[in-house]
Amino acid sequence: MADGTAGVFTPDHEREARCGFAEVVFAEGKTAAHVCSIAERIIDRSGYVLMTRVRPDQEEALAARFDDLVALPSCRLALIDRRPDGLGTRNLPADEDLKVARLLEGGIGQVMVACAGTSDLPVAREAAITARFMGSAVQLIADIGIAGIHRLLAHEDDLRRARAIAVVAGMEGALPSAVAGLVDVPVIAVPTSVGYGASFGGLAALLGMLNSCAGGVSVVNIDNGFGAGQILDRINRPPARFS
Amino acid sequence: MADGTAGVFTPDHEREARCGFAEVVFAEGKTAAHVCSIAERIIDRSGYVLMTRVRPDQEEALAARFDDLVALPSCRLALIDRRPDGLGTRNLPADEDLKVARLLEGGIGQVMVACAGTSDLPVAREAAITARFMGSAVQLIADIGIAGIHRLLAHEDDLRRARAIAVVAGMEGALPSAVAGLVDVPVIAVPTSVGYGASFGGLAALLGMLNSCAGGVSVVNIDNGFGAGQILDRINRPPARFS
Amino acid sequence: MADGTAGVFTPDHEREARCGFAEVVFAEGKTAAHVCSIAERIIDRSGYVLMTRVRPDQEEALAARFDDLVALPSCRLALIDRRPDGLGTRNLPADEDLKVARLLEGGIGQVMVACAGTSDLPVAREAAITARFMGSAVQLIADIGIAGIHRLLAHEDDLRRARAIAVVAGMEGALPSAVAGLVDVPVIAVPTSVGYGASFGGLAALLGMLNSCAGGVSVVNIDNGFGAGQILDRINRPPARFS
Amino acid sequence: MADGTAGVFTPDHEREARCGFAEVVFAEGKTAAHVCSIAERIIDRSGYVLMTRVRPDQEEALAARFDDLVALPSCRLALIDRRPDGLGTRNLPADEDLKVARLLEGGIGQVMVACAGTSDLPVAREAAITARFMGSAVQLIADIGIAGIHRLLAHEDDLRRARAIAVVAGMEGALPSAVAGLVDVPVIAVPTSVGYGASFGGLAALLGMLNSCAGGVSVVNIDNGFGAGQILDRINRPPARFS
Amino acid sequence: MADGTAGVFTPDHEREARCGFAEVVFAEGKTAAHVCSIAERIIDRSGYVLMTRVRPDQEEALAARFDDLVALPSCRLALIDRRPDGLGTRNLPADEDLKVARLLEGGIGQVMVACAGTSDLPVAREAAITARFMGSAVQLIADIGIAGIHRLLAHEDDLRRARAIAVVAGMEGALPSAVAGLVDVPVIAVPTSVGYGASFGGLAALLGMLNSCAGGVSVVNIDNGFGAGQILDRINRPPARFS
Amino acid sequence: MADGTAGVFTPDHEREARCGFAEVVFAEGKTAAHVCSIAERIIDRSGYVLMTRVRPDQEEALAARFDDLVALPSCRLALIDRRPDGLGTRNLPADEDLKVARLLEGGIGQVMVACAGTSDLPVAREAAITARFMGSAVQLIADIGIAGIHRLLAHEDDLRRARAIAVVAGMEGALPSAVAGLVDVPVIAVPTSVGYGASFGGLAALLGMLNSCAGGVSVVNIDNGFGAGQILDRINRPPARFS
Amino acid sequence: MADGTAGVFTPDHEREARCGFAEVVFAEGKTAAHVCSIAERIIDRSGYVLMTRVRPDQEEALAARFDDLVALPSCRLALIDRRPDGLGTRNLPADEDLKVARLLEGGIGQVMVACAGTSDLPVAREAAITARFMGSAVQLIADIGIAGIHRLLAHEDDLRRARAIAVVAGMEGALPSAVAGLVDVPVIAVPTSVGYGASFGGLAALLGMLNSCAGGVSVVNIDNGFGAGQILDRINRPPARFS
Amino acid sequence: MADGTAGVFTPDHEREARCGFAEVVFAEGKTAAHVCSIAERIIDRSGYVLMTRVRPDQEEALAARFDDLVALPSCRLALIDRRPDGLGTRNLPADEDLKVARLLEGGIGQVMVACAGTSDLPVAREAAITARFMGSAVQLIADIGIAGIHRLLAHEDDLRRARAIAVVAGMEGALPSAVAGLVDVPVIAVPTSVGYGASFGGLAALLGMLNSCAGGVSVVNIDNGFGAGQILDRINRPPARFS
Repeated sequence: MADGTAGVFTPDHEREARCGFAEVVFAEGKTAAHVCSIAERIIDRSGYVLMTRVRPDQEEALAARFDDLVALPSCRLALIDRRPDGLGTRNLPADEDLKVARLLEGGIGQVMVACAGTSDLPVAREAAITARFMGSAVQLIADIGIAGIHRLLAHEDDLRRARAIAVVAGMEGALPSAVAGLVDVPVIAVPTSVGYGASFGGLAALLGMLNSCAGGVSVVNIDNGFGAGQILDRINRPPARFS
Repeated sequence: MADGTAGVFTPDHEREARCGFAEVVFAEGKTAAHVCSIAERIIDRSGYVLMTRVRPDQEEALAARFDDLVALPSCRLALIDRRPDGLGTRNLPADEDLKVARLLEGGIGQVMVACAGTSDLPVAREAAITARFMGSAVQLIADIGIAGIHRLLAHEDDLRRARAIAVVAGMEGALPSAVAGLVDVPVIAVPTSVGYGASFGGLAALLGMLNSCAGGVSVVNIDNGFGAGQILDRINRPPARFS
Repeated sequence: MADGTAGVFTPDHEREARCGFAEVVFAEGKTAAHVCSIAERIIDRSGYVLMTRVRPDQEEALAARFDDLVALPSCRLALIDRRPDGLGTRNLPADEDLKVARLLEGGIGQVMVACAGTSDLPVAREAAITARFMGSAVQLIADIGIAGIHRLLAHEDDLRRARAIAVVAGMEGALPSAVAGLVDVPVIAVPTSVGYGASFGGLAALLGMLNSCAGGVSVVNIDNGFGAGQILDRINRPPARFS
Repeated sequence: MADGTAGVFTPDHEREARCGFAEVVFAEGKTAAHVCSIAERIIDRSGYVLMTRVRPDQEEALAARFDDLVALPSCRLALIDRRPDGLGTRNLPADEDLKVARLLEGGIGQVMVACAGTSDLPVAREAAITARFMGSAVQLIADIGIAGIHRLLAHEDDLRRARAIAVVAGMEGALPSAVAGLVDVPVIAVPTSVGYGASFGGLAALLGMLNSCAGGVSVVNIDNGFGAGQILDRINRPPARFS
Repeated sequence: MADGTAGVFTPDHEREARCGFAEVVFAEGKTAAHVCSIAERIIDRSGYVLMTRVRPDQEEALAARFDDLVALPSCRLALIDRRPDGLGTRNLPADEDLKVARLLEGGIGQVMVACAGTSDLPVAREAAITARFMGSAVQLIADIGIAGIHRLLAHEDDLRRARAIAVVAGMEGALPSAVAGLVDVPVIAVPTSVGYGASFGGLAALLGMLNSCAGGVSVVNIDNGFGAGQILDRINRPPARFS
Repeated sequence: MADGTAGVFTPDHEREARCGFAEVVFAEGKTAAHVCSIAERIIDRSGYVLMTRVRPDQEEALAARFDDLVALPSCRLALIDRRPDGLGTRNLPADEDLKVARLLEGGIGQVMVACAGTSDLPVAREAAITARFMGSAVQLIADIGIAGIHRLLAHEDDLRRARAIAVVAGMEGALPSAVAGLVDVPVIAVPTSVGYGASFGGLAALLGMLNSCAGGVSVVNIDNGFGAGQILDRINRPPARFS
Repeated sequence: MADGTAGVFTPDHEREARCGFAEVVFAEGKTAAHVCSIAERIIDRSGYVLMTRVRPDQEEALAARFDDLVALPSCRLALIDRRPDGLGTRNLPADEDLKVARLLEGGIGQVMVACAGTSDLPVAREAAITARFMGSAVQLIADIGIAGIHRLLAHEDDLRRARAIAVVAGMEGALPSAVAGLVDVPVIAVPTSVGYGASFGGLAALLGMLNSCAGGVSVVNIDNGFGAGQILDRINRPPARFS
Repeated sequence: MADGTAGVFTPDHEREARCGFAEVVFAEGKTAAHVCSIAERIIDRSGYVLMTRVRPDQEEALAARFDDLVALPSCRLALIDRRPDGLGTRNLPADEDLKVARLLEGGIGQVMVACAGTSDLPVAREAAITARFMGSAVQLIADIGIAGIHRLLAHEDDLRRARAIAVVAGMEGALPSAVAGLVDVPVIAVPTSVGYGASFGGLAALLGMLNSCAGGVSVVNIDNGFGAGQILDRINRPPARFS
């Protein structure tokens, strides 16, 4: 193949038809050149692409190749959106906090992403941007950890407006249980690698969430904000045949 | 308190209002007497109760106290249903296979529970009965593991009829990834403790599922069919305010 | 030595002077005969003895040797108290629930033992009886787990009356964090081995508690109610030189 | 919000009232800008702030914003104290050893922080400074590990003057057991990540401490000197309602 | 010895006679000087040498000493081949993708190396080059992971042409099971360290592969492409006494 | 379905065509009734069936249903063979040692199963019987562990007669490395759960084998003799299209 | 072979010549019949045999075959000694405590076995009997754990009389470090599986001992008293060529 | 104290008297200034000092302070020896290989250090230099791993000349078992962190060595060459009272 992906990338052209969204590029472990080639193949077919775990050198190469690239280095995402009804990716502010806020505007239905502490924010943003990019309206709330339980209870109304909730937490990972005890919708728990020594890179939070005593909690991989965002969207925006 | 649960059980009377379903009794580690007392308190208020991880001595004590108890020892469930529109629990066949089939009739919407091997059936049944008891219509498919991938592909139409799918598997726990690559709805992965030595009681399947390369997969605890069933129902039968 | 403990038991006669309480017998892994001999040696010197992790055969042998033995098989404790100002161990009710309640009466100061679920009760009782036996007044509250956070908040006044609080929980072990966020006294977290597969015998709760995001929490070994009880007492009843 | 913490930080204004001390900032995983903003919010309300796990870039940004910042890079702490009766933070010596010694002067009651080896000193200092900042008088003793048990015994009088003792140790983590066998007050064990390969980042010391055969020992997370310091203070300086 | 390997390297001169291939140099943990000396000793005797896990500084030193060195930095291999019937290592293209393609030409019999994702390509190439260097004809197929199972099925004919198949995958490591269910030849599974947090450096894939529900699967160490390549060759090119 | 396997068992009728051998029944976790039904379905189609991990109650039920059942309780195998050119299963001796010896007679090509100690014999026999049942000639050698390396060297000729070798070992699992250094054919390493405490149920042997410094070693699950036997056969008796 | 060990046991006739002691039988995982046959083979050649990890059914079969069998069920040892200068095994008392004391009389040089608690006694006795059976004079001291460090210091003279010391401990496994800090001879640390939940079957003690901060400590497997005893003897009674 | 170690270092002046060698400095985690001060204190008293795990900045500071420092950066050792009968540390060659060879000359008795591969050499040298510095004559043999067992057998005579043997190995850690089966003296096994992914930083080798099927093997921490060297010396050069 002329574009250099022969023997490297086997496109799954039917992914969008089967699963509702084109292939997402997991950039880790790939060369910058391969990421660019793969992104091009996906855009050519689908008109949009989402890339996760993007390293600085990959981001730089992508920006050189695609002038409409949107990069969010704090959460290691990059995306291109040429869909007519896509995200508004023109004239975004340079400041990343403001950029995230702008990208999260709009969307359909309602999901929530909540995180326990400010240190969990990168993963929470990965989840929120993913769900929004896939079409869902997203509310993002930060820093409502269980050590100040009143902060969580103050958001009870917000919680009940969401069709599904992703809860992002490191350390003991207890927030999903507290949230799940307050709502009647699915809770997607996302452990993060934030914590002192015996968090063992997020293992403590992961085990805590898997053992939640509250009903309705399922768990994704450590720091996997992307996975949680996609599930939120699948619950919130069911395929047309179910609506 | 007269019924013996003082200092033992603190009822959460608002659970049904907040979370859509009354408290479920996790029987493990409780005395048979305490399980009976707790069950009585819940039935008195809600008219139904679901008990998981029921030991034979607990089942016997429950059967002696409640003559409308439905027991499913193969998956360690017991339940009582006095709701007017509940499950048909009268005149159930004695054979447990037939009893499960009868209990799974009816329900609203559509979810699926699929398991990789016959050895995973007890956990799959726990998930299916839970979702059905909560109100959902459930299809249960057994023994479509990844070593004979054609068996899975033969069920592609069934898979696409479901609003959410629980996939139960032990050993390497690969089935959820294969299923998730075929559908556009959430997949709830349930690892089981079935396997040779290095399954480490289900840890291998658990890690496999958490690391699924396919989008839309979240995971519950090892052998936690109950948890998966409840999530299926929450996705399938959204609270009234969302419909 | 005539009593059979030669080469088996090296008494630490100064333990009570140094540490404020005579040696406690960890019965696990000992023969019944050795437990009896050791208990006798301690009683002869101190007038009381506490034994933990007592097996039925050990309890039987102790009861045959000591007619004032108090046994609590549900939490595997046995004790003898011949101190003039000791626990009232005469005429105890046969029912274990009532026996525990009676033994917990009295004491100095105030500590609390709270547990997340009824399945954690044996460990919570081990902690409570230990603290009471050492001299502290103890309040025991059961089943206020985090899935129904309002149950915990309803006890806020009780929590603030205690000079120290032991929080006993299995599964994700989140209750200590929630409690610690409400109080300004030390919280001793006790993980239990209660839970589904990936609790890994209490490891999930242990890690959760060690990673508590709330200040003031320290942790003891899995199912180690005894250890927690002793610490409660040391905080609540400081040595005379500090009062 | 004007100060940039909107969507990033949810202040817990009642923390000081509930728990006796304002929120402490865990700096790990936060941007320098966010740490500054959060610190400002807390100082505005409480007049003091403690920050742990501070990176050099965060320390630099804090020093640029707050000219009364006290930084202790060897133990990764930073603090600001504008309380009338606070620590003397003016005219501190530049040398960090001397600075620590000066900050530890004064305080109420008596607690001890002991560490096994010189390599454990950073964590021990984190504990000592925390306890002192919260109000307690603190004695810090270094390098009395168990391989030279006579060094420990030489401090028996010091040990018995303390109302509570934090024992900091890496490698096999045995020192807390030896200390606890000598005293009748609570011992807070702090495992450190110091050691050869099979210390597994402090896991060996953590497990050793959790399994202490001596009574009165509870454990905090690996390298969590801050947590230990706070518990020392809670034991040493009980809330007014207990004194 | 004059060449500097005395006390450092004990040559195993009979390795080629016993095991069919000269010693392979595992470069990790060795100085560049020692790697050069060892390589020289092996070439002198056998006329070829394969080096794995080569660091940049080692590669540089080797290139300075041997002008016919072939280096493949993306998979950390280096090799020298002076056999009359060896690989064609003259005039190789500079581009590494093309160089790999050229080196894989030729060979005897047929084996396959398949990898799940582009991120697994370095390990897959290590396996393929190893098998080819030892004499086997190798087909390398990339990016046919289980999330798009149709990509795998499209290669069913290729799979059945191979006498043995190495399947390289990270994350959940499910591809070997799917492949093994389609063929009647041995499958060598190679877990890679590619993945999110709970892949634990390849442990998830490793456990998944060890627990494969499909027959005929055996496993090598994480990222050990070399090992898999050698086994492929041993199956494909049996010693002369078996043919 | 009339035979009771509806909803329980999905036959994979093409397994034999795709993979060269009919489905093997993993009996663990199945009811005796289900094992019987499944066995019947497979025999009806293929004329033979192999069952692994058979419990005594399952063996009893099978023996009652099939009068030509061959049971080997020491290695938990059961099999039925009605193939014209199958194993001679008539008039087998009652003694299990003799029965194993008789069943291992005959077969095509040559493979070896070697085990380190007598305690590893059950797993070694599972491997040997599996390979023989699939068609291969098998030599079984016991008790040649690495602590007496001369015993291994005495078998060097036998080792070199085998087209592939399964090496079964518990404890440190070192035997496969020693064997692989002597031969030029593939070695399949089988860790067993035999050993003192820190063997952790075979984990030590498993890790040892995965880290073998000798080339040509791949590994199957702990105690998975069946898996090793099948791989031996696939290497030894290649599909017709390769011969 | 006539005695039934053909294909089961490969005798290592030169073991005694090479290693100074005949093969020791690890009985775990062997049938009673095989243990008897193997024991007979060893006795016939060497005149003595030591068997470890003996199950009751094996002990019974051995006693039926050998009327001079000495069984110590509390530490799972069995031995036969027909050496002219062997242990005195005639007319041993029936009581196991007394039997152990009698067997430990005599011997050459001096080693010590010390254990931390009475619960560690079975493993300590396994070590002591092994060393004595091999020829060494052994002193056994029980229950000198680190929580009462004065008990250890009281034995300082005994410690310094020993040429090597085995220290047996469960829980945190700290005793070896304390002992090693007092002596100038090798210390062999033996972790036991005694302890609460997070001892993880002896893992905590094992890691503690491996991380000992004191010089001169090496470690054997969990509960492996036999291994420690043999090392004590090898240090205490060097081969003739060294004396 | 004037030299800056007040509050940092508690000298154990009696260590040499009790344990036969002055304190050894574990440099990891200490500042360069503290290492210098501590070294000075020890030299002043004992006339020699050994420092392990020395970082480059520490080595530089030591060299600036002590002009008779001997540094061995490849094994991270530094030492000063002013004993009249100490090592010859004057006029050492600059080349580290030659320097090690020179330092190993001389000594009393005979011990051996053997390592499996060249990559294990740094740890083996740490062991050898330590034993030699303490007084023992040491032979160091490299690269005799188990994959070429004949290399080991060729050293059988050397092995039998040693009073104790340290065996250093990474990967599967099998070499100690093979060595121990050939000798009748104690074997000290040293696992190294050399290996592919599933060596888990030396855990595989550590577990392998702990589970050795050969008698006489005890184990030290991963990469702890120092510890092994000290034990070799304690076995080889017994305290005067034993000779």
